[in-house]
Amino acid sequence: MSEKFTAAVAEEFGPTLNVTDIDLPQPGRNQALVKLHTSGVCHTDLHAVEGDWPVKPGLPFVPGHEGVGEVVALGEGDHADIEVGSMVGNVWLWSACGTCEYCRTGRETYCPNAEYGGYTVDGSFGQYMLVDTRYCARIPDGADLLEVAPILCAGVTVYKGLKETETRPGQFVVISGVGGLGHIAVQYAVAMGMRVIAVDIAEDKLALAKKHGAEYTVNAREVDPGQAVVEYTGGGSHGVLVTAVHEAAFGQAIHMARKGGTIVFNGLPPGDFPAPIFDIVFKGLTIRGSLVGTRQDLAEALDFYARGHIHPTVTECALEDVNEVFEKLRQGTVDGRMAIRY
Amino acid sequence: MSEKFTAAVAEEFGPTLNVTDIDLPQPGRNQALVKLHTSGVCHTDLHAVEGDWPVKPGLPFVPGHEGVGEVVALGEGDHADIEVGSMVGNVWLWSACGTCEYCRTGRETYCPNAEYGGYTVDGSFGQYMLVDTRYCARIPDGADLLEVAPILCAGVTVYKGLKETETRPGQFVVISGVGGLGHIAVQYAVAMGMRVIAVDIAEDKLALAKKHGAEYTVNAREVDPGQAVVEYTGGGSHGVLVTAVHEAAFGQAIHMARKGGTIVFNGLPPGDFPAPIFDIVFKGLTIRGSLVGTRQDLAEALDFYARGHIHPTVTECALEDVNEVFEKLRQGTVDGRMAIRY
Amino acid sequence: MSEKFTAAVAEEFGPTLNVTDIDLPQPGRNQALVKLHTSGVCHTDLHAVEGDWPVKPGLPFVPGHEGVGEVVALGEGDHADIEVGSMVGNVWLWSACGTCEYCRTGRETYCPNAEYGGYTVDGSFGQYMLVDTRYCARIPDGADLLEVAPILCAGVTVYKGLKETETRPGQFVVISGVGGLGHIAVQYAVAMGMRVIAVDIAEDKLALAKKHGAEYTVNAREVDPGQAVVEYTGGGSHGVLVTAVHEAAFGQAIHMARKGGTIVFNGLPPGDFPAPIFDIVFKGLTIRGSLVGTRQDLAEALDFYARGHIHPTVTECALEDVNEVFEKLRQGTVDGRMAIRY
Amino acid sequence: MSEKFTAAVAEEFGPTLNVTDIDLPQPGRNQALVKLHTSGVCHTDLHAVEGDWPVKPGLPFVPGHEGVGEVVALGEGDHADIEVGSMVGNVWLWSACGTCEYCRTGRETYCPNAEYGGYTVDGSFGQYMLVDTRYCARIPDGADLLEVAPILCAGVTVYKGLKETETRPGQFVVISGVGGLGHIAVQYAVAMGMRVIAVDIAEDKLALAKKHGAEYTVNAREVDPGQAVVEYTGGGSHGVLVTAVHEAAFGQAIHMARKGGTIVFNGLPPGDFPAPIFDIVFKGLTIRGSLVGTRQDLAEALDFYARGHIHPTVTECALEDVNEVFEKLRQGTVDGRMAIRY
Repeated sequence: MSEKFTAAVAEEFGPTLNVTDIDLPQPGRNQALVKLHTSGVCHTDLHAVEGDWPVKPGLPFVPGHEGVGEVVALGEGDHADIEVGSMVGNVWLWSACGTCEYCRTGRETYCPNAEYGGYTVDGSFGQYMLVDTRYCARIPDGADLLEVAPILCAGVTVYKGLKETETRPGQFVVISGVGGLGHIAVQYAVAMGMRVIAVDIAEDKLALAKKHGAEYTVNAREVDPGQAVVEYTGGGSHGVLVTAVHEAAFGQAIHMARKGGTIVFNGLPPGDFPAPIFDIVFKGLTIRGSLVGTRQDLAEALDFYARGHIHPTVTECALEDVNEVFEKLRQGTVDGRMAIRY
Repeated sequence: MSEKFTAAVAEEFGPTLNVTDIDLPQPGRNQALVKLHTSGVCHTDLHAVEGDWPVKPGLPFVPGHEGVGEVVALGEGDHADIEVGSMVGNVWLWSACGTCEYCRTGRETYCPNAEYGGYTVDGSFGQYMLVDTRYCARIPDGADLLEVAPILCAGVTVYKGLKETETRPGQFVVISGVGGLGHIAVQYAVAMGMRVIAVDIAEDKLALAKKHGAEYTVNAREVDPGQAVVEYTGGGSHGVLVTAVHEAAFGQAIHMARKGGTIVFNGLPPGDFPAPIFDIVFKGLTIRGSLVGTRQDLAEALDFYARGHIHPTVTECALEDVNEVFEKLRQGTVDGRMAIRY
Repeated sequence: MSEKFTAAVAEEFGPTLNVTDIDLPQPGRNQALVKLHTSGVCHTDLHAVEGDWPVKPGLPFVPGHEGVGEVVALGEGDHADIEVGSMVGNVWLWSACGTCEYCRTGRETYCPNAEYGGYTVDGSFGQYMLVDTRYCARIPDGADLLEVAPILCAGVTVYKGLKETETRPGQFVVISGVGGLGHIAVQYAVAMGMRVIAVDIAEDKLALAKKHGAEYTVNAREVDPGQAVVEYTGGGSHGVLVTAVHEAAFGQAIHMARKGGTIVFNGLPPGDFPAPIFDIVFKGLTIRGSLVGTRQDLAEALDFYARGHIHPTVTECALEDVNEVFEKLRQGTVDGRMAIRY
Repeated sequence: MSEKFTAAVAEEFGPTLNVTDIDLPQPGRNQALVKLHTSGVCHTDLHAVEGDWPVKPGLPFVPGHEGVGEVVALGEGDHADIEVGSMVGNVWLWSACGTCEYCRTGRETYCPNAEYGGYTVDGSFGQYMLVDTRYCARIPDGADLLEVAPILCAGVTVYKGLKETETRPGQFVVISGVGGLGHIAVQYAVAMGMRVIAVDIAEDKLALAKKHGAEYTVNAREVDPGQAVVEYTGGGSHGVLVTAVHEAAFGQAIHMARKGGTIVFNGLPPGDFPAPIFDIVFKGLTIRGSLVGTRQDLAEALDFYARGHIHPTVTECALEDVNEVFEKLRQGTVDGRMAIRY
């Protein structure tokens, strides 16, 4: 007779998860069984459940890749610093092969043999989950378990995205969109010594950005953000991190960027956006995609958190609320991040 | 009574230059008067004469920014290694301010105070021209004066573009389009130790690429270039240099690029091209614009030429033929590069 | 009859400057005449006056390369943003040629044709000086004219040195020596998002480092600094900036550095120091020399100052005190920086 | 009853290996048993056997880390592209932990948990050896099994060292010492598009360098190599790879390097060498240690070999000759590389 636990399961692609009891898995080689305390809810979970990306997860599956919990059992293998009782997290990059050219060169997020948490492997929308101890997050001592959850995906994603903008301390960076990702990006950018400009269309989000250390904010509904940023910075921003990808943001980013500047995209929207090649060449711009982060990025992102620099806005919910949370995400009415408390 | 010389002058925007006699200028401070031997003819000259870029040249003006000739007089100032008799060239970046943030950091092509040869300053479509000795090209001893002309713009542009792809020796680079720029790009890439793949739709151009050292060629009219490149390279090309910018080339470049790869655009086409953000983020791609090159890039590009690595295909013409040459450029029937011999 | 002004003049190499009246110079092309308010006193001035470097200044000369004052006259040429009344500063890199490979690539501090302030060109130890407006510092509005002086040499030197350590925000950097350079380095490193460890042998200097934001300090007289840093950082520091170069500091730096880390030297001591090649190779260390900074580094260093991040400890003195100040520098009893007030 | 095979075993530290029969090991998890065809003999083997490095191997052990052979049995685990019959090689970096900060960032040669071939794990001086299939070399199809052996250590070491000099195609690199490492370094540098200068004290070695594509050679016994290189290059070499580390080479490297240049050390000599900090700072030099290479470096180094660019000079010997070969290495009378043929 196997043990059971409660999880939110995607049984078919569509808007709704089924909260039900499923079998408790045993940790395999290099794996740990984790009893969850919290899990953030990410837009990617929505894509997973609705099956709207080119490669779909196999059904049924448990979404969730911002889970934080305690190791209760370990499988075979060498688990390095992890033991029963360790506080760990699952992440989007659940595991990678360790031997391909991307794994060999510190770019494991592009490993063609990777497994994805809450997508190709069951995730953190349940009382228990498995992690690969070679790839899971180490939660710093003293972390607030609710607040730290969004670091595991939103946090590391924007932290890596900021690194990819190649903005140096003292240079300007625009955070375009101050939502679940953007409000954390502002905090990382400030802690990294950048001069932060926040662009959004909601005054309360711009006020939040100011609170977190943005030195200048632009309401793109009221002024031309390209012109405003060029004037404030004397020529444009060295870096632009686009967390809110819609068609207008693409063109705005081109105009807000300084000659020789770098624009980084963090999101995964469907469809094409118009790229003005003339401007890109004439201004010598770099446009780059950045996908989550590696274990090293994650360790660094967590270290910034542990040192008190990062405080995501998190609203608590219960596992049973997950379908409601999804609905709010669809409507764009979530402030900061929602996280399930078990 | 001032001296006169013959030049091809744009008196109004439109298809035709007027070959006529104009006053010989005197070299000002930091300037040299140059008696021309040859001048390449570039697509940019066509844009200049037709006035189809956002910022137009002032009328009348003499186009041309691939001119090679001998210094016959020097203005005031310190001319460093240049003296009467020196063989020099004019280039697109005719001069820059020397003090802005771009000039201070080795990125003078983005100087907001730059002058452009054959655009804001009279160029090399005439028997004489002025150059700024702080910015003009030093033509290497023993250079073939016809062959070296295209190095001054086409050569340095693709050389810098290749550097901007960040492709290391031993890695793959795709040269997309084997025309006036592309056939020189193949040669630079080979000399830089890259593994070169040429993509075009004309068999004779692909044969030329092979002759210059491309190890693999793809006829994009016959096979899917993305698929062909991915198969040949085992995952895609590390770098892609797009010299022939049309809408199809953009999409092809995305598909030909390896995860983590870099695509560089060298041309200045009008209009927008569709950018698939999902693919860019998922593959971690970098897309970059690169505009001509700095004095340092030029010196390096000329050094590769001087060491015998680069042999542009050049067809000689006379100054009087310039309107016919323009017509051929419009029709895309120029093989390699046309250069005026004075 | 020419005008006169009071300056401290080195008439022969040795310990003493002669405070006397000399002729007021006229600004040449690209030059401005500046009425000084303050000038920092740097160790390099001591080397200049004692003539103990391989290439000596021509006698007689006026030392000083941290001078701040107001433009009172302009020579011929284009002075860009500088006009009579502008507040400017002289620096070690008084001018460069603008055309050599170093000038072309944003590394003008290595220009073989450079002029050095207070060394090959008269400096700021007097009521007036000349600057080259293409190279002089632009003093930010609202600057405290005493406090800003050390930014012009000590500040830009450590700021550039920190950049050369390639330490990223969130990584550890050791500041070895908390003197005139080191106490400013601590402040820049903190503003650049680095985790700062200060090493010195004086408790009051370590206390100053703490005040400026160092998170950990090591008294190298009491503990083994290599061991202390390795333990605190879990493996060693990513960057080490050595501002106090003596033989012991070299060996300590090797031991304090993390595998793959970078050690930067800022000073110019005579003599050789023992380098343990085995350790350098086995740990994959990088050791680098860094000499003052470029105009771009200077503009950035001043921007950090203008935004309130940097507060050098400056003690005021009079021009007449300069020989006493030199004596204090020789004895190492200067706290922070001495600056002349005119 | 276990199977036996013949190997050269270090039973105690000292000059002599004992060629004897030992037990055939069984491949453990992630391991393959390999029947050897060849093994290069490296100076490091000498250090291992004489036990003269700070951390010594455990006795008894089989040296050798340039072994090439065929997989005859596989242990448990996922062996990716390796199967029985695959041609593989062992290397100095026999395995690494895969999870530390160095492994996470593509710098696995600095992994504190690494195992070293022929040092902490038995190596290739025998008819059989074990490899870790996650870390072993993949020998390209069609490789000459004698010629390819030195690529596994000497080749990857100099290839990585050249990368670490940050010399770009078209720039100068000095190869200091044209011995076992240096003669391979010349070939890699040429294939990477660098302009190669070889420095040695033996005319036959300089002739070999010329044959492999060095454009200039300097006999350091006859002329001052610093002066010769500065004159030939117009200011010094961009990169310097020091393969022959003795005290004189250190000082020569400083003088041969261009301002802003990079000097890389590849060897592991005991003792300290005098570093002239003044020159290092004044010239803005970078001095760096580089230790073998990662799996990615190895794959790249083998790809250059597979494409026909690299031909080490290899002299064949038998396992029984190993003590004689060691003696020749001690006396410095080996030309190129010795390799055992089984």
